[in-house]
Amino acid sequence: MSLKEDGPSVAIVGVTGAVGQEFLSVLSDRDFPYRSLKLLASKRSAGKKVNYENRDYTVEELTESSFDDVDIALFSAGGSISKKFGPIAVDKGTIVVDNSSAFRMDDGIPLVIPEVNPEAMEGIKLKSGKGALIANPNCSTIICLMAATPLHRRAKVSRMVVSTYQAASGAGAAAMEELELQTREYAFNLFSHNAPVLSNGYNEEEMKLVKETRKIWNNKSVKVTATCIRVPVMRAHAESVNLQFETPLDEDTAREILRNAPGVVVIDDRAANHFPTPLEVSNKDDVAVGRIRQDVSQDGNYGLDIFVCGDQIRKGAALNAVQIAELLL
Amino acid sequence: MSLKEDGPSVAIVGVTGAVGQEFLSVLSDRDFPYRSLKLLASKRSAGKKVNYENRDYTVEELTESSFDDVDIALFSAGGSISKKFGPIAVDKGTIVVDNSSAFRMDDGIPLVIPEVNPEAMEGIKLKSGKGALIANPNCSTIICLMAATPLHRRAKVSRMVVSTYQAASGAGAAAMEELELQTREYAFNLFSHNAPVLSNGYNEEEMKLVKETRKIWNNKSVKVTATCIRVPVMRAHAESVNLQFETPLDEDTAREILRNAPGVVVIDDRAANHFPTPLEVSNKDDVAVGRIRQDVSQDGNYGLDIFVCGDQIRKGAALNAVQIAELLL
Repeated sequence: MSLKEDGPSVAIVGVTGAVGQEFLSVLSDRDFPYRSLKLLASKRSAGKKVNYENRDYTVEELTESSFDDVDIALFSAGGSISKKFGPIAVDKGTIVVDNSSAFRMDDGIPLVIPEVNPEAMEGIKLKSGKGALIANPNCSTIICLMAATPLHRRAKVSRMVVSTYQAASGAGAAAMEELELQTREYAFNLFSHNAPVLSNGYNEEEMKLVKETRKIWNNKSVKVTATCIRVPVMRAHAESVNLQFETPLDEDTAREILRNAPGVVVIDDRAANHFPTPLEVSNKDDVAVGRIRQDVSQDGNYGLDIFVCGDQIRKGAALNAVQIAELLL
Repeated sequence: MSLKEDGPSVAIVGVTGAVGQEFLSVLSDRDFPYRSLKLLASKRSAGKKVNYENRDYTVEELTESSFDDVDIALFSAGGSISKKFGPIAVDKGTIVVDNSSAFRMDDGIPLVIPEVNPEAMEGIKLKSGKGALIANPNCSTIICLMAATPLHRRAKVSRMVVSTYQAASGAGAAAMEELELQTREYAFNLFSHNAPVLSNGYNEEEMKLVKETRKIWNNKSVKVTATCIRVPVMRAHAESVNLQFETPLDEDTAREILRNAPGVVVIDDRAANHFPTPLEVSNKDDVAVGRIRQDVSQDGNYGLDIFVCGDQIRKGAALNAVQIAELLL
């Protein structure tokens, strides 16, 4: 991040959380230009001192007047905070990039992965006096679609079967600590994602993958099913993705497409049995994809199996939100 | 296990290994009747004393004459030992239940899960003077098919997409110790199964699931794809299984079928988010199935998603082999 007179004024809502902290580090890594920075959190955290890029900041309490003169606000403080303060910020002319699920499926609110559907943000302009909400997709959706979209563009995905291996980090700092301490809940075990289970038997995490994919791809007919499982891994998610295409796509072409895809790195060394792992992608920006192979359960070249890993806090949350903000510059 | 004058004479090959030890404990748990017991292992382990059911045994070196007067031999000493000594035992009139992959795909050698295809053993008789080989399927195949078969019988599976979450135990005692010690390779990470990767990009573990399913179901047209991943879990495997049927099957009927399936327990409490976990099935005989739901990516009731957990050493190996031996009694 760097101070620039003509840069936007930026606010971070929920700065003391894991994603909030990651916002700061990603903004700094990417040298995001800004005129001023406001750090917002709940009353409990207000008053805390934060040294960021050699300047001292004081965390302020989030209130209705927090967004006067804020151009861009990055929200990661949970759905209820977003629901209450998002529209208030928008009224003040702020462009809100929201990491919660509060607005993701709302008509008229773009749900954006910059490498996938930047066009969804069309018409949203910084300093136009008109505020707007942009939703950041769910972590497992972002990581899946980073790899699936380049292939979808070439051969059109008709159906996708996803099984996730999700890190404890998504369940919050307490879950990570539990895992570190090797307590029974998180260590040496795995379990169906802790999101509430809906009446159709899917949990909310799984239905996010189903519905967000359709919205991001602007394609109501794509079929998606997902099984989301938490595994004793710290901060990166893995996903086994089975793809069914409308037109044939051979694995060599798929590998080439993925090698050239922005934000994607291919790790696919069969001889050395070297493929993506959560540890290898932790704290990295790129989503890693490997195990690229023609699906033997589908005739012709209409199917592929791939395995994807991505940092859940980075590309799965903070990085993607900052990239959305960069599109506004 | 209990000594019985008219019971078979039993030999265990590879008794000092993890599965070998489990053979002893399963035989004891199930009160398997036997006339005599012979414990066989490599030269290195020969001479070791084993106290089993209040009797002292000495581990003997496996040699060509080990099988004189052995009715049933349970092998779990690796493929090369099975390949060399399996046929020798058969020549002596012994019925060999082999836990290695050496003979699984051979024509004329039954590949058996007792709850699934006991008929494959037809014609094999104890004390008939005629030896025989029976292969024990791969652990991930057994665990998957324990849940999938009852549904297959009702609605015929046309395609199955499996993603596994496999325990370190399958990679041997060293892997389990590594995990316990929280070393980098096994803890807080996961990786594509360590079996060699074939020219089609699948690893051997995955192709076992594909091919063994076809043989066990005696159905060459069933389509299967699998992605096998090791996770930091001690001894039970989990599998996310997506099923496609030829005829409709609704989830309530599926749940009822699974509740009545032998060797299967249903754990499917959506309100409490309580579903099968590896820890819960560790050291248990039954395979647990849950997350039973209509697949939203398939029209009508032609698809189901299920999640299965089973003890890899028990039903995935030793128990299944002992159940095969029980069919011979």
